[in-house]
Amino acid sequence: MSFAGKVIDGDVRSVARLIRDIEDDMAEAREALKDLYGYTGNAHIIGITGAPGTGKSTLVEKLVEGFRGEGKTVGVIAVDPTSPFTGGAILGDRVRMQSHSTDKGVFIRSVATRGHLGGISRSTNDIINVLDAAGKDVIIVETVGVGQDEVEIVRMAHTTIVVLIPGMGDDIQAIKAGILEIGDIFVVNKADRDGAEKTVREIKDMLQSNRRQPGEWGPLVLQTQAVRGVGVPDLKSEINRHRSFLLEEGHIEPILEDRARQKLLDEIKDMVVGRILDRVEKRKDYQKVVQDLVLKVDNPYSQAERMVDEIIK
Amino acid sequence: MSFAGKVIDGDVRSVARLIRDIEDDMAEAREALKDLYGYTGNAHIIGITGAPGTGKSTLVEKLVEGFRGEGKTVGVIAVDPTSPFTGGAILGDRVRMQSHSTDKGVFIRSVATRGHLGGISRSTNDIINVLDAAGKDVIIVETVGVGQDEVEIVRMAHTTIVVLIPGMGDDIQAIKAGILEIGDIFVVNKADRDGAEKTVREIKDMLQSNRRQPGEWGPLVLQTQAVRGVGVPDLKSEINRHRSFLLEEGHIEPILEDRARQKLLDEIKDMVVGRILDRVEKRKDYQKVVQDLVLKVDNPYSQAERMVDEIIK
Repeated sequence: MSFAGKVIDGDVRSVARLIRDIEDDMAEAREALKDLYGYTGNAHIIGITGAPGTGKSTLVEKLVEGFRGEGKTVGVIAVDPTSPFTGGAILGDRVRMQSHSTDKGVFIRSVATRGHLGGISRSTNDIINVLDAAGKDVIIVETVGVGQDEVEIVRMAHTTIVVLIPGMGDDIQAIKAGILEIGDIFVVNKADRDGAEKTVREIKDMLQSNRRQPGEWGPLVLQTQAVRGVGVPDLKSEINRHRSFLLEEGHIEPILEDRARQKLLDEIKDMVVGRILDRVEKRKDYQKVVQDLVLKVDNPYSQAERMVDEIIK
Repeated sequence: MSFAGKVIDGDVRSVARLIRDIEDDMAEAREALKDLYGYTGNAHIIGITGAPGTGKSTLVEKLVEGFRGEGKTVGVIAVDPTSPFTGGAILGDRVRMQSHSTDKGVFIRSVATRGHLGGISRSTNDIINVLDAAGKDVIIVETVGVGQDEVEIVRMAHTTIVVLIPGMGDDIQAIKAGILEIGDIFVVNKADRDGAEKTVREIKDMLQSNRRQPGEWGPLVLQTQAVRGVGVPDLKSEINRHRSFLLEEGHIEPILEDRARQKLLDEIKDMVVGRILDRVEKRKDYQKVVQDLVLKVDNPYSQAERMVDEIIK
């Protein structure tokens, strides 16, 4: 059986190897991804985002339990688009997730920042495709809500969950931009803490002023206590209800189109930037051009224009 | 006087307008930047990075006071490469900085994430050039240490300061990657807290195992209590000493070359990506190609290869 064939067959070692190759940006991974693409499209992709400390990972762990209870297979991709400064946190969380490590119906993978910008959403997209083609029924993509990257990542999801906790105070105002538009379900976790009701109300107020079109999904606000499992069955039901909603009357079409378009453009960007930088760095006059910039004989803006004109048809 | 001429002359309104145009990615800004570039290269560029809550902004405020006391003019660029989730923090800090708001020798500007990835380091670089050409003696670039972006941003600095606080525990291990190599001065702020000495020792241990070449700058570890101004004069002296070190015997050359090279490549990347995406989106078959991807008739990897081949010489 071919390598891609083994991945489609769900072979765990082949899946793990392909994901590693994707992260290392190997040419072989690209070829396998071409072969796999036709087998994607069956998984329910769920994005979960929220600030550090909101208990996202525990929530994910409980959701995995829930979906497993329904007999569904689950893939989890934990994306940490943060720097060395905070890089340890999510990996620590992953250790806890190992409660699922002996379950063959669950595949968990952490993806950390590496390489150039934008690379993380591109490789996360590829990893989703791998797990999808490998037959996972549900794919949960968990990100820490700290940058443009994670907005791009949750845009790949069919169902997007935004996790908050009581007493985020003014921070709740800050989530307005960007996240409010993409959340399908808002979860106030750690709902036994003071101020849970207030936080729910604030989110609802914000959603009111951002009312969606008739026929669109009306975002929900739920309360959970993930550590004790409280509210998680309801959350799972609502996730499934959102899936059904999407599959009715073509609601999922724009999401699929948006993701296909984004993926095409991301691949083009990556390929173009790679080829062109390679070309520029191999120029015989490259070192002289840089020196001219240092000496202010020339400026980088004009020089870039000239080089690009030489390369693009 | 031309617009660029006014900026070089230090006219505050022209400087502010040009920075706004840069952030809005206006074509006019590009032309002005070309004209200004030859006037850059005199400022001492200081990068300050650290996790949220380390007191960076207070430290910056005190340093501004210190440099003003030496009769130097100062520009401050506060970069927040974080999302809506935490976006409020740094703006709050900025309000405090307004203690300098009536001082014409100080120019303060916040830059928030917007637009595509990588755009923030590109525009920060441009804003540095504006303040440099406008005659600021010292330019402080402050970033929150949460991503690849801020590593790129501090790489533009001549002197890089990494701020930590006591009791960061295991987090201190996490700073190893990336940041350790670029820090010229490490500051343990809030040094009146328990564990300051231990944190200093841990950083020194890490620096030991990462020893630099003879003739290179040996990174320092200092303690400060920014709120009370304790340790800030020493920090300022060491910053000035680092400046002198750089200007001796060509130590600054590699930094200037690195920044020029980075700037050239950033401009090329941005220009190429802009032109090519524009070209792709204007294709008559664009919508059909996306539909083929949704329907799995084609895959985005092969399609991207075909389109790029058509565009690059």
